[in-house]
Amino acid sequence: MIVLFTDFGLEGPYTGQVKAVLHREAPGVPVIDLFSDAPAGRPKPSAYLLAAYAEWFPPGTVVLAVIDPGVGSARAPLVVEAEGRWYVGPDNGLFELVTRRAARPQSWEISSFPVALSASFHGRDLFAPVAGRLARGELPSGPPRTAESGRRADWPDDLAEIVYIDRYGNAMTGVRADCLPSEARIGVPGRELERARTFSDVPVGEAFWYANSNGLVEIAVNRGHAANALGLAIGDAVAVLG
Amino acid sequence: MIVLFTDFGLEGPYTGQVKAVLHREAPGVPVIDLFSDAPAGRPKPSAYLLAAYAEWFPPGTVVLAVIDPGVGSARAPLVVEAEGRWYVGPDNGLFELVTRRAARPQSWEISSFPVALSASFHGRDLFAPVAGRLARGELPSGPPRTAESGRRADWPDDLAEIVYIDRYGNAMTGVRADCLPSEARIGVPGRELERARTFSDVPVGEAFWYANSNGLVEIAVNRGHAANALGLAIGDAVAVLG
Amino acid sequence: MIVLFTDFGLEGPYTGQVKAVLHREAPGVPVIDLFSDAPAGRPKPSAYLLAAYAEWFPPGTVVLAVIDPGVGSARAPLVVEAEGRWYVGPDNGLFELVTRRAARPQSWEISSFPVALSASFHGRDLFAPVAGRLARGELPSGPPRTAESGRRADWPDDLAEIVYIDRYGNAMTGVRADCLPSEARIGVPGRELERARTFSDVPVGEAFWYANSNGLVEIAVNRGHAANALGLAIGDAVAVLG
Repeated sequence: MIVLFTDFGLEGPYTGQVKAVLHREAPGVPVIDLFSDAPAGRPKPSAYLLAAYAEWFPPGTVVLAVIDPGVGSARAPLVVEAEGRWYVGPDNGLFELVTRRAARPQSWEISSFPVALSASFHGRDLFAPVAGRLARGELPSGPPRTAESGRRADWPDDLAEIVYIDRYGNAMTGVRADCLPSEARIGVPGRELERARTFSDVPVGEAFWYANSNGLVEIAVNRGHAANALGLAIGDAVAVLG
Repeated sequence: MIVLFTDFGLEGPYTGQVKAVLHREAPGVPVIDLFSDAPAGRPKPSAYLLAAYAEWFPPGTVVLAVIDPGVGSARAPLVVEAEGRWYVGPDNGLFELVTRRAARPQSWEISSFPVALSASFHGRDLFAPVAGRLARGELPSGPPRTAESGRRADWPDDLAEIVYIDRYGNAMTGVRADCLPSEARIGVPGRELERARTFSDVPVGEAFWYANSNGLVEIAVNRGHAANALGLAIGDAVAVLG
Repeated sequence: MIVLFTDFGLEGPYTGQVKAVLHREAPGVPVIDLFSDAPAGRPKPSAYLLAAYAEWFPPGTVVLAVIDPGVGSARAPLVVEAEGRWYVGPDNGLFELVTRRAARPQSWEISSFPVALSASFHGRDLFAPVAGRLARGELPSGPPRTAESGRRADWPDDLAEIVYIDRYGNAMTGVRADCLPSEARIGVPGRELERARTFSDVPVGEAFWYANSNGLVEIAVNRGHAANALGLAIGDAVAVLG
């Protein structure tokens, strides 16, 4: 299975062209849109989101992950293997957390470039062909990554910031819930939120936090739009209290 | 074929994870996104929309329908068979109209729960595996539904309200057009709309109603945005006149 | 491969129903969403966008293209063959550029109509079945197009207007970049933009133009939203300054 994690959106031409390449390179392999609205052009929050969601998929999954504000610049293209999953994308920090949380991660630079390589769409021209070949069973052919340009040792293990806001207005953080005591509170500007099990456990209109279905601390309002109600945006800091 | 009817959206993680489960449980079965923007958290308008659109699909289709504001609460999970189509989702009224309009509907409670059941994402953890098993030919294994908690005998046969607004601004109602005389007018605040066959039969900018391609009374403006022009939102009442 | 080029969006019911028909008519043929947000109801900018993006796909591809503000009126339904690709859709100018740029284009009127033809959704009821049959290898069965109603001889070879704005705010024009000298500038209200190779070649926040990954002149801002920054909308004229 190939899983897409991008900021490309689905309605414009980008995801469709990537899928056309994947169908050509790996016919019959299912392609799943995991996120096509990951934080646009922001590898740091995306890295925490990716790490939380990729681990739900079985070993052998190929994750094509492209949040690539530096496309066409010197950042290296990369293949990472972590916990049996393959990741393909730019070496800009996006794979920092999946790498750091893995027992024996491996990574390779992509050193073979297609003849027809656009300056602005490496997702289609460079990364998708590599993902397709991995999905049909080929092993990475590039040299092991030596330059550590894409590692971000200064990034924390969990990111106490909003990393994603879903269509209901729920605001995910980059903090894993099982790293917190159950009585922890989450501070947002002017408010401290208690933990609940899920939406229907609190009154309509009440804000709370809970462990979402992929293990992240998520801020929500029962039948409300938490991000609007609490004024939250991607990149905003939250406080972990107690 | 498996058909998805949800309020999950496509760009975030929800629909993709559901599809990953369906691919695992029913490999090779096509999965169609019918609505991923059904009325968010509102089973009542969704029930009329679902009934109108599901009947376009052939018998044997499995419809995974999740509009589930009470996820994690006591509402039962359900399988319904109606006119040869299978429906899987929460017993919160969403299947009232497909049930009521069927000759010999059957329903079963889902009584077997997965070990890994999140509190907030039953679409992925509970309903999708059941839909996948139905799609590969298994029969429902739960007890027949006895509790009638999900039936809504007080809901009308047709709902004279806006149930959906499409991307062009056309406003669908929950009223079946073939239940109306051809000269019927539809009243919205401050206006009475005449029937037309289709857009190009009225002048540019003119509001009208017509029988849409799935049989619902739909309010439209030729080359305009009816919902904005007439101030219509989901849940707004309309009047059926004569 | 079947490629969809429409203004239907993905989240509502239109694209899903089209795909259900394609799966029925051409089981196993991959269906790619190229654009589902092409300029709504505007065949002219859509025609330039289609011509630029369709040529990226290999010969044999079937393109189902539906931008059809006149659905239900007298405009003819059409099949076009151009450079080995098949196009199916309304004869309203949408295929003017793919036809004009092809060496030996052929076109046929669709003369066989389904019994169940809605007045408003020919994409599903008329065009999708034809596209499916082409994709499984059938040849067009209608008479050669004789009426030239859909040709637009007065449209220019390249359209110096904005034809699409993507989710990042980049504004594509209908001008092919390889038709311009490399030192050309593009004029927008109050500004003249220089050419760059790609985003990372200009300072953050700077506006420029470049040849996008499908060959169109595109106006962009490095890490910014060009359409908002420069006040650009679909249909706005730009100046090509030699």
